[in-house]
Amino acid sequence: MKELIARSLKYQNGMVQVLDQYLLPHQETWHHCENVEQMKSLILALKVRGAPLIGLAASLLVAYLAEQGSSKAQLNDAIDELTATRPTAVNLMHCMARLREALQQPEYAQAVVTEAERLFEEDCALCDRMATFGAELVESGDNILTHCNTGALATAGVGTALGVIHHAARQHSNIHIWVDETRPLLQGGRLTAYELAQWQIPYTLICDNMAASLMAAGKVDKIFVGADRIAVNGDFANKVGTYNLAVLAHYHQIPFYVVAPVTTLDSSCASGQDIPIEQRAETEVTGVSGSFGSCQWAPEQAEVYNPAFDVTPAALITAWVLDTGVYYPQQVAAGVLGTV
Amino acid sequence: MKELIARSLKYQNGMVQVLDQYLLPHQETWHHCENVEQMKSLILALKVRGAPLIGLAASLLVAYLAEQGSSKAQLNDAIDELTATRPTAVNLMHCMARLREALQQPEYAQAVVTEAERLFEEDCALCDRMATFGAELVESGDNILTHCNTGALATAGVGTALGVIHHAARQHSNIHIWVDETRPLLQGGRLTAYELAQWQIPYTLICDNMAASLMAAGKVDKIFVGADRIAVNGDFANKVGTYNLAVLAHYHQIPFYVVAPVTTLDSSCASGQDIPIEQRAETEVTGVSGSFGSCQWAPEQAEVYNPAFDVTPAALITAWVLDTGVYYPQQVAAGVLGTV
Repeated sequence: MKELIARSLKYQNGMVQVLDQYLLPHQETWHHCENVEQMKSLILALKVRGAPLIGLAASLLVAYLAEQGSSKAQLNDAIDELTATRPTAVNLMHCMARLREALQQPEYAQAVVTEAERLFEEDCALCDRMATFGAELVESGDNILTHCNTGALATAGVGTALGVIHHAARQHSNIHIWVDETRPLLQGGRLTAYELAQWQIPYTLICDNMAASLMAAGKVDKIFVGADRIAVNGDFANKVGTYNLAVLAHYHQIPFYVVAPVTTLDSSCASGQDIPIEQRAETEVTGVSGSFGSCQWAPEQAEVYNPAFDVTPAALITAWVLDTGVYYPQQVAAGVLGTV
Repeated sequence: MKELIARSLKYQNGMVQVLDQYLLPHQETWHHCENVEQMKSLILALKVRGAPLIGLAASLLVAYLAEQGSSKAQLNDAIDELTATRPTAVNLMHCMARLREALQQPEYAQAVVTEAERLFEEDCALCDRMATFGAELVESGDNILTHCNTGALATAGVGTALGVIHHAARQHSNIHIWVDETRPLLQGGRLTAYELAQWQIPYTLICDNMAASLMAAGKVDKIFVGADRIAVNGDFANKVGTYNLAVLAHYHQIPFYVVAPVTTLDSSCASGQDIPIEQRAETEVTGVSGSFGSCQWAPEQAEVYNPAFDVTPAALITAWVLDTGVYYPQQVAAGVLGTV
């Protein structure tokens, strides 16, 4: 496999390596990953995270196993296991389906490697196209609100929603970002803040429940978020709290954009109702934990509800920014997402 | 002064004592408080918190100082200093104004003591009346969502919004509570969870950004919140995140009730625009800290926006539950809050 290098994933010196996003922003630790069990536990612990990145990391691992001489049956099993790691983001399923197809070739090992390389390089190009389309929606002086982390850490390229922000800040003056901390796992407070600081884009961190009063005060011009799965009717699943923002944006008449590559579309989901929502551990809500330390503040016996994602209906979305262009509600209602 | 005992404030054995709410639910630590500086720092650190409780704790301290022989001028200064401790909750201002009036009596020391006793005992009665009125709005099987902590810890009685929940759970069967954790200071995750567990009322803890998806799923029947200050037109300030919930409730057509004693009304505020909003320290948002430990996860240089409260406009409120009764929008629009 050729050398492939992204912000949080690389294939270099014959090894698949991932940046531990659980330890960011306090520690930059890279892990080598040599087998399915390792990759599964890295993904489940959100050390490898971001809908596109999960798919690519799993793909590089399968390609590595192919290069190491794994049999067709072994590769098939690896693909099965990796596909089932997390249920909501569809990019992983898409990547695994592409590799499974490559596995049907006579020279399956080389075909799998080539397909993994292609997925990685495609993702960089997808990010750049989304960012370019999205940046055209931004104006100088905009205050943009975003949720979770959708930047270079979450993809092989510049990111999805945060990629738009990256390009917009280079094209327009006085762009300022409101960063939702994104409880429970704080991807905004830890990762988006870290990426924006590195890119030298001015930002202000808020708790998720502060966005509404900013909107009421006229301090939010636009909202850009990513997606883990988009249904044919335009409904989409994304990090929990996204639907909250969409309702607030609707009430305050603020444009609300979802940014995702076409690999996030799921033609088998007619609507958001068909998207499975992952439930996660109670301890994520009763406290926090990471390289910054660990605290549990709620009573030990507390019952907890902890969905990792929520579903935003198409009716609340101003436009869908894909790598193939910007789509508006009338087009989406006419079924364009089933054809791009 | 007579013996006065509430859940988190007491006058006993000649001492004003407060339960440290910063250390809850892990430690039950009571502090003696003997002077204005101590009380101010207890309030500023949110060891003494809850709009009604702050007013009562400050009142007991002034009464204690009067008993100890402080001069009229010293008591006046104490009242001035305590009034300025936190800017948003008006109960403190009301209590201090009542004591300042008592201070005009010839037997001012005894008058101040009597007035402080009256404020304390009145608050218990106010809580009980609000809870009784509010509980009539609840039905068996209701799933009620609440924000922050508005229970016995926050008042001399059973609480405001949580007092309603307390009474409702005794009158109706199968009441279940959704508890917003209430970032940044986690009054929901720490204090409301703790109180509901003690009262044996079933609850489920959520992150603030999860409420929207619960509402979309039809899992929230009613919302009850407290208030730190209510303007004459019905707008009110409460813990940040309250306005967020009000917009969500409006969109999902869920009844949204604010519960507060008449001492929370401010006849000098025509609308919510007149209510000053306290901004607090950045470290509250970049991490968490308490008896459970301390963590800072955001980049050290992160800019932060941290308003302690937000303002909910009257248009989003189903009814105002006061100790004098339940008021509906038509009555409030007609100016009833200026006359109760």
